Amino acid sequence: MRQVSIIGIGEIQVGEHWDLTLRQIAHQAIKSALDDAGVETADALYVGNMLSGKLNKQEHLGALLADFSGLRGIEAAKAEAADASGAAALRWGVMAVASGFHDTVIVLGVEKMTDAMPNEVQAGLALSEDREYEADHGVTQAALSAIMMRRYMHEYGATLEDFASFAVNAHRNGVGNPYAMFRRAIKPEVYLRAAPLADPVNLFDSAPVCDGAAALVLTSAENAARMGLDHPPVQIIGSTAATDAVAIHDREDPLFLNAAYVSAQEAYIQAGVTPEDVDLFELHDSYGIMAALSLEACGFAGKGEGAKLAAEDGIALNGRIPISTMGGLKARGHPVGATGVYQVLEVALQLRGEAGDNQISEAHIGMAQSIGGTGGTAITHILAV
Amino acid sequence: MRQVSIIGIGEIQVGEHWDLTLRQIAHQAIKSALDDAGVETADALYVGNMLSGKLNKQEHLGALLADFSGLRGIEAAKAEAADASGAAALRWGVMAVASGFHDTVIVLGVEKMTDAMPNEVQAGLALSEDREYEADHGVTQAALSAIMMRRYMHEYGATLEDFASFAVNAHRNGVGNPYAMFRRAIKPEVYLRAAPLADPVNLFDSAPVCDGAAALVLTSAENAARMGLDHPPVQIIGSTAATDAVAIHDREDPLFLNAAYVSAQEAYIQAGVTPEDVDLFELHDSYGIMAALSLEACGFAGKGEGAKLAAEDGIALNGRIPISTMGGLKARGHPVGATGVYQVLEVALQLRGEAGDNQISEAHIGMAQSIGGTGGTAITHILAV
Repeated sequence: MRQVSIIGIGEIQVGEHWDLTLRQIAHQAIKSALDDAGVETADALYVGNMLSGKLNKQEHLGALLADFSGLRGIEAAKAEAADASGAAALRWGVMAVASGFHDTVIVLGVEKMTDAMPNEVQAGLALSEDREYEADHGVTQAALSAIMMRRYMHEYGATLEDFASFAVNAHRNGVGNPYAMFRRAIKPEVYLRAAPLADPVNLFDSAPVCDGAAALVLTSAENAARMGLDHPPVQIIGSTAATDAVAIHDREDPLFLNAAYVSAQEAYIQAGVTPEDVDLFELHDSYGIMAALSLEACGFAGKGEGAKLAAEDGIALNGRIPISTMGGLKARGHPVGATGVYQVLEVALQLRGEAGDNQISEAHIGMAQSIGGTGGTAITHILAV
Repeated sequence: MRQVSIIGIGEIQVGEHWDLTLRQIAHQAIKSALDDAGVETADALYVGNMLSGKLNKQEHLGALLADFSGLRGIEAAKAEAADASGAAALRWGVMAVASGFHDTVIVLGVEKMTDAMPNEVQAGLALSEDREYEADHGVTQAALSAIMMRRYMHEYGATLEDFASFAVNAHRNGVGNPYAMFRRAIKPEVYLRAAPLADPVNLFDSAPVCDGAAALVLTSAENAARMGLDHPPVQIIGSTAATDAVAIHDREDPLFLNAAYVSAQEAYIQAGVTPEDVDLFELHDSYGIMAALSLEACGFAGKGEGAKLAAEDGIALNGRIPISTMGGLKARGHPVGATGVYQVLEVALQLRGEAGDNQISEAHIGMAQSIGGTGGTAITHILAV
């Protein structure tokens, strides 16, 4: 198996891009990543996207976006795994290079959510649920998260103040990221007074609806070493995926993300590292509860101690395990199918030492984990320079 | 790169399965393929599907179908490339095994179309078009095919009688396939008198709306050789994909499927064969015009001579290049995202000598090509025993 490197990264600012179409934001991210890599084209394009059929009345994104980006002819297709679609596209891209089928591959994550009506967006997000047992009964993603959060508070005595720490950290880090949707720090009181979405989940506990596009250019480590890049190539030393029951009630323990656990353990083995070696962790903080459970499943906190770790500032840029270093899903934003690519891009930025005001010190090994729905899919990548 | 073999195949009869859900037909195909391979589980599941978000209100099929099929935990995700989604999932599966990431992989194609209203289905199929330039103006897939067919008849003097030959051949072959939706032979007059959908495309020129699921089990050729299977493993000796402009008006020549041409040429090179070596060709006969253009793009007929080849019975089971040997999209049926897997499964059946009444003689090398939309994506696989 060939070792795979990230040689180019490109992103647009996450936000409400009323004046741009899906294909336009995709093209901007692709062009920016190709420019960063110093190459003009690629052999294949794998697109992570969840909702274009529902919200943009457009499937067949692979061919469409390859053509619109000036790459007509190359292999192109879309990968979907709910919120983890971008990370799934990266899995595909890694395999394409590792196998030798392709030398240079673009992995794009793109989602254009703000052109649709809010009820359509909620119905779209609910497509990640088990329709027969969850969505058809009217339960939204926020409501499912509220169920888990309530149970977590009951089991472990965690408080709203504990959960506020995730939002405070994410917004603090969003300030320093020019590509973040929200660039304003918040105090815990803002979180504690926020309007409820599905109690105890509130507006400041939840990632926003938004548009975004981010792209990576991959090649073999051997090619990357020969290219004379003006930045270090970032090595993908772990790439794994695992699944769990999609419906929460059907899991062995609704407060343990087993897919996240399995995927992380396999990634640690592939990479030959332990959680102690990981210098930063871009996790799936779509809701505070998901961040807490991810920290626990991946070995950064004991069971029931994820929220406490946040409350003790263990997740800050200078903390024990920095998370959401560029704002996370909460403040950078969560353009669903694009998020998995943004996360990996941000780890690469940190490892390249280009994270600006948010640069963490001694960034050698970073991890990104993307989760689909409430935990049905988990995809983990470990990167190193 | 590891050589990849197909060691198991499974399918359900294509049709209108009012009494079964998407997850149930998916499970039947997966179970049947695992049984055929003589294995109980796999390391990953790649699902080809185009329309589950639109027609079944369900995304996140990877995790959902892995779990429902008793495979909770394994890597799973969905691939989408319009009508070529099943073939795209196979590309992913091939890369997963070729790279060494996984040893045993299930590739599933599934589509459940008959639970939705007909206008929803048509709107769904139009998601494969370039929305801004085609679908938003009300043009259906049948209408786009009619435009190409009319032009073809004008340019090359092809007649309706010529095109009838594709439908006659497909229905003749459907009779011998217990998994085909339509198992009744038709005379040319039936085609010539059929109700128009978008003149000159008529009901008997067009693949049906239907439900279907088909699965393949892949492993490395080395593993396959060690397994002591009771049927020969089928080698995947060519696996390629290419794209073109999604909108027909934007192509260099609306009567030349360039993606099909590029993908086929690359597959011939990978496999080390020429069209003359190919013993059967499962092509994308969603409409007669698509079959004619595919034959031409892949080198089985000169430009403008594809329909003539059909009229001269060159496509029959004993013809120069047998196509649609188990009924094709027209008679076996076209459950959109599943079709690419059905095609490869049928080639494998022929190469294993298990095609029953439809068995062609001297089946050593077979080709399957799946096309997305009117030609925006083309994915080609060449198989051998």
